[in-house]
This record gives sequence, C-alpha cells and structure tokens, in this order.
Amino acid sequence: MKNLLFIFAMACGHLLTAQTPHSHAHQRKIVFPDIPGYQTLSCDFHIHTVFSDGSVWPDIRIQEAMKDGLDAIAMTEHLEYQPHKADIPHPDRNRSYHVATESAEGKDLLVINGSEITRNMPPGHSNALFLEDANKLLVEDSLEVFKEAQKQDAFVFWNHPNWTSHYKDGMAKLTDMHLKLIKEGLLHGIEVVNDITYSTEALQIALDHNLTIMGTSDIHGLVDWQYDIPDGGHRPITLVFAKEKTKASIKEALQNRRTIAWFRDYLIGREEFLLPLIRASLLVSSASYKGDTQVLSIKIENNSSVAYTLENLGEFSLHAHTDLIDIPHHATTEILLKTLERRASVELRFKVLNAVTAPKTHPEIRIAVKVGE
Amino acid sequence: MKNLLFIFAMACGHLLTAQTPHSHAHQRKIVFPDIPGYQTLSCDFHIHTVFSDGSVWPDIRIQEAMKDGLDAIAMTEHLEYQPHKADIPHPDRNRSYHVATESAEGKDLLVINGSEITRNMPPGHSNALFLEDANKLLVEDSLEVFKEAQKQDAFVFWNHPNWTSHYKDGMAKLTDMHLKLIKEGLLHGIEVVNDITYSTEALQIALDHNLTIMGTSDIHGLVDWQYDIPDGGHRPITLVFAKEKTKASIKEALQNRRTIAWFRDYLIGREEFLLPLIRASLLVSSASYKGDTQVLSIKIENNSSVAYTLENLGEFSLHAHTDLIDIPHHATTEILLKTLERRASVELRFKVLNAVTAPKTHPEIRIAVKVGE
Amino acid sequence: MKNLLFIFAMACGHLLTAQTPHSHAHQRKIVFPDIPGYQTLSCDFHIHTVFSDGSVWPDIRIQEAMKDGLDAIAMTEHLEYQPHKADIPHPDRNRSYHVATESAEGKDLLVINGSEITRNMPPGHSNALFLEDANKLLVEDSLEVFKEAQKQDAFVFWNHPNWTSHYKDGMAKLTDMHLKLIKEGLLHGIEVVNDITYSTEALQIALDHNLTIMGTSDIHGLVDWQYDIPDGGHRPITLVFAKEKTKASIKEALQNRRTIAWFRDYLIGREEFLLPLIRASLLVSSASYKGDTQVLSIKIENNSSVAYTLENLGEFSLHAHTDLIDIPHHATTEILLKTLERRASVELRFKVLNAVTAPKTHPEIRIAVKVGE
Amino acid sequence: MKNLLFIFAMACGHLLTAQTPHSHAHQRKIVFPDIPGYQTLSCDFHIHTVFSDGSVWPDIRIQEAMKDGLDAIAMTEHLEYQPHKADIPHPDRNRSYHVATESAEGKDLLVINGSEITRNMPPGHSNALFLEDANKLLVEDSLEVFKEAQKQDAFVFWNHPNWTSHYKDGMAKLTDMHLKLIKEGLLHGIEVVNDITYSTEALQIALDHNLTIMGTSDIHGLVDWQYDIPDGGHRPITLVFAKEKTKASIKEALQNRRTIAWFRDYLIGREEFLLPLIRASLLVSSASYKGDTQVLSIKIENNSSVAYTLENLGEFSLHAHTDLIDIPHHATTEILLKTLERRASVELRFKVLNAVTAPKTHPEIRIAVKVGE
Repeated sequence: MKNLLFIFAMACGHLLTAQTPHSHAHQRKIVFPDIPGYQTLSCDFHIHTVFSDGSVWPDIRIQEAMKDGLDAIAMTEHLEYQPHKADIPHPDRNRSYHVATESAEGKDLLVINGSEITRNMPPGHSNALFLEDANKLLVEDSLEVFKEAQKQDAFVFWNHPNWTSHYKDGMAKLTDMHLKLIKEGLLHGIEVVNDITYSTEALQIALDHNLTIMGTSDIHGLVDWQYDIPDGGHRPITLVFAKEKTKASIKEALQNRRTIAWFRDYLIGREEFLLPLIRASLLVSSASYKGDTQVLSIKIENNSSVAYTLENLGEFSLHAHTDLIDIPHHATTEILLKTLERRASVELRFKVLNAVTAPKTHPEIRIAVKVGE
Repeated sequence: MKNLLFIFAMACGHLLTAQTPHSHAHQRKIVFPDIPGYQTLSCDFHIHTVFSDGSVWPDIRIQEAMKDGLDAIAMTEHLEYQPHKADIPHPDRNRSYHVATESAEGKDLLVINGSEITRNMPPGHSNALFLEDANKLLVEDSLEVFKEAQKQDAFVFWNHPNWTSHYKDGMAKLTDMHLKLIKEGLLHGIEVVNDITYSTEALQIALDHNLTIMGTSDIHGLVDWQYDIPDGGHRPITLVFAKEKTKASIKEALQNRRTIAWFRDYLIGREEFLLPLIRASLLVSSASYKGDTQVLSIKIENNSSVAYTLENLGEFSLHAHTDLIDIPHHATTEILLKTLERRASVELRFKVLNAVTAPKTHPEIRIAVKVGE
Repeated sequence: MKNLLFIFAMACGHLLTAQTPHSHAHQRKIVFPDIPGYQTLSCDFHIHTVFSDGSVWPDIRIQEAMKDGLDAIAMTEHLEYQPHKADIPHPDRNRSYHVATESAEGKDLLVINGSEITRNMPPGHSNALFLEDANKLLVEDSLEVFKEAQKQDAFVFWNHPNWTSHYKDGMAKLTDMHLKLIKEGLLHGIEVVNDITYSTEALQIALDHNLTIMGTSDIHGLVDWQYDIPDGGHRPITLVFAKEKTKASIKEALQNRRTIAWFRDYLIGREEFLLPLIRASLLVSSASYKGDTQVLSIKIENNSSVAYTLENLGEFSLHAHTDLIDIPHHATTEILLKTLERRASVELRFKVLNAVTAPKTHPEIRIAVKVGE
Repeated sequence: MKNLLFIFAMACGHLLTAQTPHSHAHQRKIVFPDIPGYQTLSCDFHIHTVFSDGSVWPDIRIQEAMKDGLDAIAMTEHLEYQPHKADIPHPDRNRSYHVATESAEGKDLLVINGSEITRNMPPGHSNALFLEDANKLLVEDSLEVFKEAQKQDAFVFWNHPNWTSHYKDGMAKLTDMHLKLIKEGLLHGIEVVNDITYSTEALQIALDHNLTIMGTSDIHGLVDWQYDIPDGGHRPITLVFAKEKTKASIKEALQNRRTIAWFRDYLIGREEFLLPLIRASLLVSSASYKGDTQVLSIKIENNSSVAYTLENLGEFSLHAHTDLIDIPHHATTEILLKTLERRASVELRFKVLNAVTAPKTHPEIRIAVKVGE
C-alpha cells in the first residue's frame, strides 16, 4: 500500500501539465543587472506559511519565488504566534524551513532559515535570518531572544516599524530598547518597505543608526493576488549586492548594508549602491545626430524591471520631452538632445525621481555618451 | 497578550488592501443563465487542501471560489491518504470542512462536507458529498465505506475513472465491484471531467448506467496557475440545475442527474439540460433586414462564459460565414442570413459542436427568430 | 525654393519616427508556410484609393500591405466610377498603379496594375489584373472591355457576385452573359470572399465552371479600422501558390487556379491546395508516451496565421479533448491520444471544419506521427 | 446610371459594418473636464490631406477626429506647397475644408477653414485659422499674406518654430520679421508642440511675447500609426477653454490665450488654466481614517486622459508612497496620509511634475480634503 500511495502522490500533482500560454510569463521574472564587483540578487526575507499564520504550504512559496525569478527567500514564521497550532502542533520551529528546502531541491533558489520574533512593542516584531536552530529562540525575555540570535550569528532586522497596530500614527519611532539593541549589535536592519507600505521615517532611522535597508513582502496569502501580478505588479523585495550567490555571501552583504529596497517603481537605498545599479540599468545603445542637424538621438535601453522617472538636469534642452522623462522597464527609450553644435561626446545628467537615498532626496546620475557609439 | 494577538491576526491580513485594477476581474467570474424551472449553479465538488495532499489552507479555496463566482464547493480530502500527517495529525476528517465553513462565513457560497474515499482499484477513488461525519468512513473494507456513506445519505461519485495510475491506457472501465455498487445504489455519479482530462468512455458509462455526469477540478495547487486564469482559462465545474441555491437542492439535483460538466469550451451533459442551457445562453437581441435586401441581420447575444462553435443546419446560407460559426463568450455576434424572400420569422438550426450528449454526438438547437424583434 | 520644398517634403513625413512598442507588431504580419513545389504568397487583388472612390493616397496602401506582410497587391480603381473626378481629373487610368509603384520602390512587395470594370448587371463588376494599359479598357460595350483585357493577356475575375446592390437576395447567380464570358475565356475567376462577406453560391459556381477562387478586401477606407487590426483581425486575402515571387508567376498561378481564399478563420479552396497547406501549417513537433502509460502526447505546432477547428476522425479517443479540437494560430497545442497499447507510430485523422472545399464540405487530413520524434 | 452609381457609392462603404470589439474603443476617446466658467474643448488645429502633402482624403480626418473624441479640427493645407498638383489641380484653396465639412455633416465636430502659409525662413510656416477665403492668401510677399489673413480676422500662429529644416539646432528663435509680425498684431500664437516634438524655447517665446500656446499633430499620414493608438498613444492637441462649443467661441478663446497644449503626458500652459484643469481632473472621491489609526485614506479619481506625476509638498508623509506619486488616467488612486492626529480636514499640496508653466517650472496645486466626505 505504501508503494501505491507513493505513486499516487507523484501522479496527483503531475497527472498532466496544463498548457501554459507564455504571454504573461516572461514579464513576471524580476531582472536587475549586476553592478561592478557584485552580483545583484533579488531576495524576499519575510515570508509566512501555514506553519504560522500564512495560508499556503511552503511548496507554494517556492513556486512563487521561481515564477518571480528570485535568488533567495527566507522562511520567517512567527515564533510566538501560532494560530494554526490546533491543527499543526509540530514543535520544531525549523519545520517550515525544512519543508521549503525539500521543495526547492534541484532549483536555483536559496532558502534561508529564519524566524519572526513576535513581541509586543517594544521591541515589536523582528526577523532573525540564517538561524541554526529556531527552537532555541523560544525564550520569554525579549532581550534574551536577540542574544540567542546573536549566538547563532543571525542577521536581525526590525519588521514594519510603521505598523499601525503598534504605532497608530504609522510613524516609525525608536524606543530605548531599540537603541540598546542597536548599540549592542543585536539589531542590524530595518524594514523601510513592508508589504504595501513604505516608511520615510524608517529610512531616516536606517541612515541615522547605520542599519541595513530592507524591503519585504511579509506575504501571508498569495503573491499573485496581493501584488496584482497579472496586471504587472510585483512583490517588494530587497536587492542584495553579494560577492556570490550563496547564503554566506548574502549574509555578508546584509551585514555590510549592501542593499536596496524595491517597492512599486521606487528604489530606496544608499547612493553608493543606487548609482551603480541605475547606471547598469540604463545603457546607451546608440547615439547619433539626426541627418545634418544638431539634434542628437540617444537611445537608452532599460535592462531592469523598474520604470524610471528622470528629471533632466543637463545643460541642453530636449526635442521631444520637457525636463521630465519616463523610461519604461525592459524597453528602449529615445531621447533627443539639442546640443547647439555637433559634439563628439556629451554628458547626460538626471535626477532620478523614483529613487530615494534619504527622505525627499533623490540621487543624480551622469551618463557619458560618446556620439557614434 | 491574547488580545494583542487577536488584533494582530486581524491586521496581518488586512493591514491595507492593495489597489486592484479591474480589467481582469470581471472576466473571471463564471456566468451561466438559469433554465426554465431551475437555477443554474456553478459548483466544484472535488477540492483538496493541506488537510490531505493539497498545498493551501482552506481559506484560499474560499477566496478562489469567490473570485470564480462559484455557488458551491465541496471539501473532499483523502480519507486514507494523509501525506502531511506528520505536521497535521488532526484526527477529525471533518476538519477541512469546518475551517472552510468558517472562512466562508458571510459569503454567498455554499460549502459542502465531503471526503475522497481513496482506494486501490477497484473501486479506485470516489467522492462522498453531504456527509454528516466523515470520520465514520474510516473503515477498512471498501464496500463498507460506501454503505456508511449511504447511511449518511451521501451522494457518491467515481473519481477520474480514466486515471492512468489505475488504468494505464486511460480508458475508464467498470469492474464487477462498480457494477455492484451501482446496482445497490451506492454509487450515483462519475467524473467525465477531472482536472485537465476528459473521458468519452466515462460519459458512455454514465449514459449506460444512469449515473450523474460530473466535472471537477480536483485542485491541489492554485486554481490561478493550474488553469491559466490570467490568460482566460477556467477550472472545470459541474453546472447543477437546482430548485434553489441550498445544499439540499443541490443534493436533490445531483441525485436526479440534473448536471452538465463544463471543461475548456466543452459542455458535456444530457440533452434535456443542454438544450435549455444553450437556448438561455444564446439570445436573439435583434433581427432586421439590411436595407431593402433579403439579407437578414440577426444579433445573437451570448450570456454565458462558454464560447460556442456551431454548424449551420438551416435551410438558408449565410452572408458572412461558412457553415461554421464561432460565438465568443459574453459578446454579441451578428449572423447574416440570406432568406431569399423577406420573412416575418425564420428558424435557426445549429448543431452545437462544442456540446456533447454522448460520444461523438452533438445536440441540435432550433431558435425561432421573429423579424423586427 | 524647389530644393527647399523637396527637403520639406522629406522632412514632413519623417521629422522624427515615433517610438513603436512591439507588442502588436509581430502579430499583424500574415504568415503561411510554403507547400511542396510552390511558394505561398499572400495577396490582395482588390484595392481602391482616392483615384476612384477610396479614401487614401496609394502610399497608405503600400504601408498597410507592408504591415500586413503581403507579397503582392493589385491597384484596381473603378474605370467608369470616378466620384473624385472634380478634384482628381487625371485622365490616365494607370495613374494609381504608377503612384503606388513609386511608393513601393525598394520594398519587397509586388504591385500589379489592375482595374475594376464597373458595369451594371450583367456582368456587374470585374477586376482585370496585369494590365499593360488600363486606359484602353474605357470602351462602352461591356463585352468589348473583356476582349480588350484579353488582348492585354489580363487575368479577369467577377467581383462580389453576392453584392446586394445587384442581387438583393445576396445569392450569386450566373447570367447568360457570364456563361458567354466564361466560355470564351474572358472571365477566369470569381470572388468567393469580398470584404466582410462570403458566398457559398460563388464557391459552387467556381467549382462548376472551373474558375479561380478569389478572396479580396475591396478596401476603400483604412485596413486597420475595417478589419479591427488592434483586436487581432485581418483583411481577407488570396493565397497564391506560385513558382516564384514574381508577377509572372502569380499570373500563371491564378490562370491555373492555384489559390485559397482566407477570410476570418476560414480557408476556402480546392482540396489539392488546401491539404498540403494544412499539412505544412500543422507540424508535429514531438510525440512521446506519458510515463509508463499508453497515453501518447503529441505536440502540434501551428505555423500559420489561421486558427484551425478540427474534428477527430481517428480510431483513438482523446484524453483532454472531445472530438472537437481548437488549434490556435502561431502556437503549439498538445493532444493526448489513448492508443490502447504503446505504438511506434500512429495516424491522426481530422476533418478540418474551418476549411471548405465545396459548400458544406470539409477536407480530411491524415498526419503520420512517429513516436519519439 | 447616375442613380445606380449613387447607390453604389453608398453601398461600397457601408455594405456591411464589421463587428467591432469594444475593448480598445473607450480608451481612445480623449476626455478632459470643464473648468469654472469654460468648456474644455479638445482641438487639433494643424492637419493635412491629399489636398496638399497628406496621404488621406478629408473624410478620414473626420473619422479620426470622431474616434479621438475631438471637438474641433482645422484643415490647414499648404498654400504654396502642392506636391499632388499634377493629380489634384483644384485651384480652390478652400476645397479641403469644403470636403471635410461635408463629411462632418450631422456629427458633433466643428471644422475650421485654415491654411498653412508655407514660406522659407523667415517667417517659416504659419497657420491662419477661421479664413473666409483661403485663395486670397496666395500672394507672393510674405508680409502681405499675414495682412490678408488679418483682413479676414484670422487667428495666426507660427508652426514648428523648432523645425530642424529651418533651424538645424532645433532652437526656436525669433527673427526681426517675427517681432514685427507680433508687434503689428499679425501673429498671435506659437506651436510649443508639433507632432512628436516639444520646444521649451518656444514656450519661453510665448510667455515673453504674450502669444497663445499651441500644440498640434501636423498629421500627414494616419493618426493611428503616427501616435501608436492601439498601444495607448494619442495625438498632441490644444485644449481650448471656450464659453461655448462654437467656432466663434474657439476663436475668442484663442485670441485670449486660453489654451493648454497636451503632448504625451505633458500639459503645457499658463498657470491660470493649468491649475483649474488639474483641480477638475483630480477629484477626491473619499477620505476616511483606516480603522482607529491616524492614517488617512484619500481616494483620488482622475477624470482625465492624462496620467499625472506628482511630488508631495505637504506637511505629512505618506504610508504607501515616497514623495513621488503616479496618478494613472481614468482611474482611482489611493493615497495614505499619516496625519499624526485625526483631523476633520487636511490640505494636499503637490508639485505637478508633468505640467509645465515655463521652462523647468511646474505648478503647485493644493487640494482641500474634508475627512468623511
């Protein structure tokens, strides 16, 4: 009978594969170019399943991640909040990670063992990543949990500091306890983006206290529904600039704050990573003068999944745009520059309005263009 | 703390509702018109969750059903096959139904308590619907299970009789045991459609043995992925012709074989229900002669989610079609009839090629058209 | 000043090329595979411009044809009907052809000199193609016009024999004059498809009298609007099976009746050309058994712009279809055949319902499938 | 015979109307709300046909305008440039207007008699609108033409002052002759937008010299192709704020500079018209606090065909946006404001980045929001 059931289990899932038209498929995969010295990895470090208060078995999370083209995900069930406990009494807090890891076997996806330390405020909720044994974090004292995480060399970040269940005004605010955690090296990052919210105050905290900038989905239901995938939406993620696509490299990158949060068409991060990412995203594919005129046609190819909104800061005016330029994702946009005389090279200068390095602050990029290239 | 967690649980799911563009939404809802004397109910009677070998919590099944516009679903976990048992050891086989029922509270969706009797062949797998207590079906003898179902006045049907794990040739075949079950009134229906398969042999068995024709999804993963919802796909369902939208009425309708299976653009059922359904789907919204000609313009409005493929059997030839006519779903199609002389009324006659009443047999409909209507 | 104006004329049209997203572009191009011994050429032999009663300058017709991916078009202005004469009194009836030819310079498009002989019934309207001098057809006597066309070795076909301005019942009917024209070799083809109409009676006439089957747009306004191009529509065309892509070869092919008319998803033609075209359109890209079952998965790649509607006539039943099979255009469709035992080869047999060889008559194709290919 | 041909002409165009799916149709119509005191009229004042160097008969221009939902168009053939003269020698320069007027009969579309005065630089090309007799403008001296236009009380504007055939650097520059024309009241407006180009220098000239801001298509080919209508593009137009929808009111509005040019998603105009238009476009449809929080949900309904790009200048930070907010056209967008305490009203303040009142200058709008509305 065991044999029969094994065959049955295989067959049930794979009886026949439905024919899938491809029109939507290739748009869903998230694509960002690498930057000099680092691989750009697309990661979601905040994910729930039925093993805490989510609505899917871990295998769905693996499939969603594959469809989204992610490089890594972290399973981060609530340690202390287990609403399905009556049905799923499993005592092992690493269980979700183990089930997910099995589902990911043979796939080019890294699965990280994490847990959401789920406390009242302060300190609220925090995710600890790269755990060896999540069970050891089941200690009552809030401070001790963080110390245990530290013992396991975990990377820890504050979740949704703007959460209206904790701060009714939605304004992220550090408490003394947070300051202590940061000072003692027990808290390393902060969610500037959680699910469908963004916190400019959290960004300021990250900058003031040298924390890693995080953006996560905190998904409980289905990614397809929560982020309107069929209409071109996407889950928020953290872009990690890692030396290699390994868990160790991701950890090292997180510890050294090499991240950008991607939310809607916003990129939120430190200028030292935003500038190279934007430069790698926007490539000049050609530059040539129109006929015998002094109007220079520059074609910019956007290799990334984000649409850019640029403000022209350059010395020359444009022939087909005001000073506001939209650069759709995965497409080539033509810009016509009136250079007054024919030049061998020009420099484009843009403020990147959809990118944020600090509250109300946008990075400026300069792109050197060789005519005739 | 309990209070906190309650608030947390509420907030986690509903922190903010994402903005949902509507372009795809209205197409997903399944719509079929009522027929004289009966409501047409869209039902999926074969559904799995994590409580047997599915990949979602029951709440996702409720949300999928609401998005699909279903009237009723049955939770039909495997009784004997529990691959998640190590994690979900819950001994109550009604548990999936209870959790789903709670999720459906306040929604216009009927949830039916069912179970999949999961046996080697014969008799293979069968679904028992309208159970009072699924646990009582946990008996070893295959025949006794059916008798227990009968005690509870369940409606029972044979699942995927074409399943290649049971019949490697995919050909549904009755065994002596099936004949006995049918004869003793223990088996009432048969899946002619399961997931992405159709069985013409099962249809013949239904007709030969007076069984109810069933079409189900047997969904284990996500409906959106399995049936390419963003590309216009749909799950297979059973259309039930019920006196009212109640569980009792559905049961009565199933017992009296008032069903049609909908799969792709196929409608499979008995002529006595197919004909009124097709007639109710295809309404003549106008009929008038073009100018002073003898060419009659007839506008046919398709009120259903199925696209029809018709063969013209009428006496008149068409001005803009050969004898093959496509009628897209939820749209109005114009047919131009060359009636030789101007008439006050005509009769359209079509063979409905996408509808099946028996293997290789398609129903014919006649539509009386009054000119000037 | 002349020089200036020349530059101006060039610049006006081409000042800057708008950026064109590509999503719609590649679907518009009409694609049909070649058949053994012949190239399959997509042609529209009935086209109007401002030079008779159309609404565009000939250059638009060239651009439309390029966008549609046509191989050849014929300019066929009305000889006797010149509603724009007050504005365009040009006496040369070859003028539209000359202007169009100039516009087509450097493009891979053949432009044929034609004219529409525009007479009351009988004989109604006819197109004469491959004219040397259209002006010589301006003779009063209806028979003499055809004789002049014959002198120029023109290919002549009867236009919209189902036109309700000539036959209010829309029923194509031969007159004595037509019989005489045919008998004397003055009339060689007949439009079975004109614009948005189809005539089964015209098809019968073509078969009875050995005439070439034609399908044309008879476009007066814009192709994009008349045929709903953005929604996936297409103009009706004549597929010509020619030895080479030259005017001479097209003429030879028309004279020898090697044509198919394409209208909506219908292909109308003689079996000797329909069968090889359908076979070349539907290629088996793989055939292998599912696991250890006797269910054979056959993938059929449709290389053409037409969607096929097939009826299964083969000995085996299907695992995922009834006997009605839709094969969308430019896509691969999987068919699952229940072959009872594992075979090294099978033969598929289909009636092609969207193809018509005679009124109410559809061709049958057989496709030999080698398993493992 | 004449009678026959008349019927023929009617029938040829209208034999049968093709079935048009509606999916694309409703998006094409241009919609802008009225502003206090004025109707907002969508107008294209620069249009060519075969009567100068365009490629369509005037009836196509009427149909394009109806599909675009325009209120008024001006026919503006080149007076001095007639490349189709060999074919269309018609001596009456009002002819295009007369043919277009006839085509527009019974339609809610105003057709204005205009002409393009087509001269070498200076003064380059200018459009004179509201002409009584265009023929009288066929005078050799460049200054005299403008005086004749003045005699007819025409409204005259400078076309494409950024045209690279006149200024190879694309930089609009006033000559002494232009200064004289302006000073003497012979030139009243200037194209800031022509076809697919925009000129920030022309905008500065308009502001410096009190000229009317114009945006026109200068269409020669097909609007559908030139502006990628199927992909959501639109032609550039001039929004005119008129007391009524009459030619006289449009003329009065143009004379009093009550215009905005719409190009891509840019609105270019004087602040006194931009501010009320933006306010009328962006309506607060609801404003209420989320649960018991201090996060205010404000739903903004965009009633216009333009997508807005806003920069938040208000005192409060946002819960789901950075300071950059995209407001798609014809949709409702939710903004979440963190108001620190619950308020009865708030004021939104935005810089409208896609609107331009002067080079590099964007208007600011304030929207008073009553909570609970």
